[in-house]
Parts: sequence; C-alpha cells; structure tokens
Amino acid sequence: MPDERTSHHALPPDIPLGGLISMIHRMHGISMNTRAILPGQFPFILTLSKRPGITQDDLAAHFSIDKGTVARAVRRMEENGLLTRTPDPENRRRFRLFLTEEGEALVPKILAADREWEDALLSGLSGEERGEVLATIRMLAERSHDIARSREEGDDAGI
Amino acid sequence: MPDERTSHHALPPDIPLGGLISMIHRMHGISMNTRAILPGQFPFILTLSKRPGITQDDLAAHFSIDKGTVARAVRRMEENGLLTRTPDPENRRRFRLFLTEEGEALVPKILAADREWEDALLSGLSGEERGEVLATIRMLAERSHDIARSREEGDDAGI
Repeated sequence: MPDERTSHHALPPDIPLGGLISMIHRMHGISMNTRAILPGQFPFILTLSKRPGITQDDLAAHFSIDKGTVARAVRRMEENGLLTRTPDPENRRRFRLFLTEEGEALVPKILAADREWEDALLSGLSGEERGEVLATIRMLAERSHDIARSREEGDDAGI
Repeated sequence: MPDERTSHHALPPDIPLGGLISMIHRMHGISMNTRAILPGQFPFILTLSKRPGITQDDLAAHFSIDKGTVARAVRRMEENGLLTRTPDPENRRRFRLFLTEEGEALVPKILAADREWEDALLSGLSGEERGEVLATIRMLAERSHDIARSREEGDDAGI
C-alpha cells in the first residue's frame, strides 16, 4: 500500500461507513467533472443507454431521488440535445426518454473516464489486491440492496 | 461470508467501481429514509452540527453540489424548524446557517441510524473482517480525495 499517497488527505478517524461512501461518491463526481462529464448527468445517460424508453418516474425510482430533481436534469439534458422526451401512447401524461445520437455518443466517453478513475484509485495495488477491493465493494453493494429492500418491505427481522 | 444473503441481489458483473459506490450511497439513503431520516437532509445536519455558522456557499462546496439544490434543501429545513439562516454581518448577502435545538436533537438519532445500518451491512463478519472492510473503504475515500484535488489543480501527472 503506497502510504505516501494515502497520507495526502488524512481523514478524521470517526467518519461512519456511510459518510465515507458518500465522500467517495462525491469525489468520483468531481473527478468525472474534470473530464467534462457532468456528475448530474452521466448516471442518467448510462441508465438511458441500458434502458431506452424508461419513464421519468422509473428513472427517479431507479436512483431513489425525487421527481423534481429528475425533471430538472432531464430538461437540461433535453436542452443540450442529449435526449428526447416522447409522450407514452398508452398514457399521454407519461414521458418516455430516449438518448439522441449525441447522447449515445457520450456513453463510451463516460465509460472510459470511469475506467481511468478506477485505475487511478487502485494504482499501485497488485492484481490480487484490486480483485479483493472490488469483491469487497460488490459485497457491500449487494448487502446494501438487501437491507434497503428488506426495510422497505418492513421486514427488519430479516436483517 | 454468508453467501445466502449476498445472493439475494446478484448484481450484473460489469458495473464499474464508481457505479457500485453510487449504488451503496443510494441504498444507504433509502435505509436512512426508512428510519424517518431524510436522505436529502441528514448529511447537511451532520455538517452543520460540526461547523455551525457555515455559509450556504461553503455547504455547496463541501458537498460538491450546485447552489440551487442546497438552497432548496436549506429552505425546507428552515421551514421544518431545523435550522436558522442569519445574514453575515460582514456581507449581508451571505447567510450563515445554524441548527436549531430541534435540529441538534436529530444528530444522535442520525448517528444511531448510521451505526445500525453499518451493523446490518457488516453482519456475520468477524471483527477482523470488519476492520479490513473499513480500512479498504477509508483507503478509497482518501485516494478519491487525492485524485479529485489533484485533477482540480490540473496536476494529472501526480496521480
């Protein structure tokens, strides 16, 4: 472990795990921003690329954020020509979202910037150490899903 | 490692590290929400508790989010009696934020909910394994800070 790097920003010892995760999340956003990839937009673009035609409401549910925030981000991306909003034929008050060609062209750039960030984050670690870090984070992601779902179902005994 | 738990929500194998971190961050917010602790508010409350009198602009910079989002959250918390906005005597257009007694009373509740989440997330792990998980996340948090700062300074060679 390259100690001289991790010592640059020594964190207070009492930050809870949730706070550390939130910090990494924010720092990831800042780092993407320096690659001209807007933190408020790239998660939506990746999701729209995987699920073309998703509704605004489903997008809000997917990210567990409020509908107003999604509406503002969608409007900005529409103004920037990255996506189109199409009324759902079955329900005209519901909008389906599709990336434009310009929006789709951002996907490989976002993925490359993400890989670059990950390489910087794990630099100096051996292949085995990287594998361990990724396995730990995947385990936490899966468990955090289980906990959130279990609580939403009101089944706290299951945790 | 309790495999029967992690298998509840098997994630696709190709999610980048940044995406996994973002997912844990969101699931943490959902879990806090089920404890009647609003995901959009508790990080602000904890920060205000540690830095009473912080300005709205500094709060936005601290969380790397836009000023409009902070302004909306602050207005909502003010309406709910959790904080006060006081004009800065040195610059009347700048507002300093302070928790009310009611806001301060939420701090131990937030910390308890955070500890409860962390316990659920790491349940079934030995003390040593928990220590390793926390050390890994702290290492990533510190490195992610270094990367973001280095990029903001335009010093990519340093990574």
